[in-house]
Amino acid sequence: MRRAYLDHIAATPVAPEVQKAMEPFLGVKFGNPQSLHFIGQEAREAIENAREQVASLINSRPEEIIFTSSGSEANNLALKGLALAYQKKGNHLLLSSTEHQSVLHSGKFLEKLGFEVETLPVDSYGRVDPDEVRRAIKPQTILVAVMMANSEVGTIQAFKEIAFICAEKEVLFHTDGVAYVGNLPVDVESFPVSSLSLAGHQFYGPMGVGALFVKKGTRLFPLVDGGIQEGGRRAGTENVAGIVGLGRAAFLAKEKMKDWQKKIIPLRDQLISELPRQVEQVILTGHPQDRLPYHASFCIQFIEGEAMLLNLDLKGIAASSGSACTSRALKASHVLLAMGLDHALAQGSIVFSLINGNTKEDIDYLLEVFPPIITRLRKMSPLYAQFKEGQK
Amino acid sequence: MRRAYLDHIAATPVAPEVQKAMEPFLGVKFGNPQSLHFIGQEAREAIENAREQVASLINSRPEEIIFTSSGSEANNLALKGLALAYQKKGNHLLLSSTEHQSVLHSGKFLEKLGFEVETLPVDSYGRVDPDEVRRAIKPQTILVAVMMANSEVGTIQAFKEIAFICAEKEVLFHTDGVAYVGNLPVDVESFPVSSLSLAGHQFYGPMGVGALFVKKGTRLFPLVDGGIQEGGRRAGTENVAGIVGLGRAAFLAKEKMKDWQKKIIPLRDQLISELPRQVEQVILTGHPQDRLPYHASFCIQFIEGEAMLLNLDLKGIAASSGSACTSRALKASHVLLAMGLDHALAQGSIVFSLINGNTKEDIDYLLEVFPPIITRLRKMSPLYAQFKEGQK
Repeated sequence: MRRAYLDHIAATPVAPEVQKAMEPFLGVKFGNPQSLHFIGQEAREAIENAREQVASLINSRPEEIIFTSSGSEANNLALKGLALAYQKKGNHLLLSSTEHQSVLHSGKFLEKLGFEVETLPVDSYGRVDPDEVRRAIKPQTILVAVMMANSEVGTIQAFKEIAFICAEKEVLFHTDGVAYVGNLPVDVESFPVSSLSLAGHQFYGPMGVGALFVKKGTRLFPLVDGGIQEGGRRAGTENVAGIVGLGRAAFLAKEKMKDWQKKIIPLRDQLISELPRQVEQVILTGHPQDRLPYHASFCIQFIEGEAMLLNLDLKGIAASSGSACTSRALKASHVLLAMGLDHALAQGSIVFSLINGNTKEDIDYLLEVFPPIITRLRKMSPLYAQFKEGQK
Repeated sequence: MRRAYLDHIAATPVAPEVQKAMEPFLGVKFGNPQSLHFIGQEAREAIENAREQVASLINSRPEEIIFTSSGSEANNLALKGLALAYQKKGNHLLLSSTEHQSVLHSGKFLEKLGFEVETLPVDSYGRVDPDEVRRAIKPQTILVAVMMANSEVGTIQAFKEIAFICAEKEVLFHTDGVAYVGNLPVDVESFPVSSLSLAGHQFYGPMGVGALFVKKGTRLFPLVDGGIQEGGRRAGTENVAGIVGLGRAAFLAKEKMKDWQKKIIPLRDQLISELPRQVEQVILTGHPQDRLPYHASFCIQFIEGEAMLLNLDLKGIAASSGSACTSRALKASHVLLAMGLDHALAQGSIVFSLINGNTKEDIDYLLEVFPPIITRLRKMSPLYAQFKEGQK
């Protein structure tokens, strides 16, 4: 059976160069980076090299990079670590309503500790209005979190403009870069950002490793307390192989990002323009222009996302209906609801997200098999029958 | 140059079987376990299989295992997660004074949130007296944490007896099993334990992956909030390769643990009996009998641990002076101080910890090169000169 992997947002494949760089650290180079002997030094040098590679990808200093086990952990570390470190300054946090659950649920945790957490509305494309941020900042506000881009709808936020407003108001600004970093250029010197999260499995690195950039001079409470790893800001014996893989992936992304975009964007655009022509009652979700280069997302009326996914899977096509982190919860996406979509339409969410290596044949294949799947599923939908009746 | 790796407590080498099991998950099997399609299912099945393997090692149910990124994270999750979940019941915690920093520093974090944290004294072998635990438990006590064994001095605690006292008093009992699990048999059905932490790099699994056993029915706040991974108790895209490696290591340990012990214990005993014969003013630290099978630790009077390590390193011998997690802090170990050693003697700490694969030749080589190193270093010590003067 033909196969097409269109689920970048769940995980990108590990690049062969990345896998090769990791291998020795699962074999002969098994040392603990904190050990003072030769085999420990080898591991230590490898993680410091990876730190430089990740720093270089976003133009930060190496000492501003903290390795974590995921983008979610990086977001938790930022939200909880900054809020607790700056609680004497104030207790108010502003989070955009389409943030990843790792940000929103960190907010809920902080509410239990007495912080006040307010969510910022978004427009129908999922964008936060920077003026809204300006209006919502209060004297007791310590932190604003607005992501770089949303993995469910692809929309890129006006994060730079928001960052400058936060800087002007002397408020910390965290941005979740998991969907963005490694796919589009980032320069942390070009806008005043306090912290920025990223994850390896969004740019051909391994799963289970991420990083948090924290601007020099910014105080931060650890999330994992204990040893002196990561400058005392993240304890625990390091996932050396994973960190080496993340570093190599960062190096690769810096070099190849433009090539990837050049190949992927035309395929994304083909999908965005052709799918709504071939299927009735389909809407593109997220912003039509300001969106991730690899991202095409839709809501298909009268059908549930899960049914589409399972039928696509039978045809060898891997896609998703939203964030992998909540895929099994089978609830309508909080992102789509925040954008004003009604509940039924939000249930019909489908995301095709492209990876380096996808071809025009993959998209042609999808466009061949997907419309008949929709037709078949709609035949079972009483709501669709009503709709067709109403059209007569 | 001849090499001998005697630093089990920093990291064990990754077993070839473990490395082999991990490889596909850094290659073709790159799916996100939360994805509903075929490539996600593959990853999901792999982590559920690993969960069964880890559960089987300690005789728990698979659903009682939460994967983490390290033993430190598992200890943080237990301490903070249990304390916050049970804070309506009380606010008093009891920790043994020789716990790992990830436990003690989690306690310090909880103190900032208003919890009262009390440390339990240890005897000169580093053991907590179970009667002391019974006396120290107050009506507002919610949690007691005493480790299974200490990685710096090898001492095994009376954790079962302490667990039964906690159960009788209706207090949660956490035990740090990082140094113990995979090296000695554990059966969580044989004593009433609420939570137990473990780490892969202590039994030939990869670094950067651990697990927390949490007894069914025990409430727990997540440390990393977000998605629904690990039953909602630990968010973040999984380190699938690492988890698969941990599972395979658990399977291997269950099968081979006795063989490993049979080979390692005589080497440890050779070292423990011969080193003090060849060098004056050397004391064994930790309990002479109730100690980890792979563990020989000493304090060498008039010398600093770091100098010994560097000189051993030059001879190709990897050892440590205590926990790798704090090795670069160059402070006297809190464990040795809690055991009543004076500060100067504690600075002379050295730990030789054996791995499967070490040979009698390794120990003979160590016993050949180590005494001359001590002699040379002592020549530079004014305190040693005073001591020799006093002997005359």
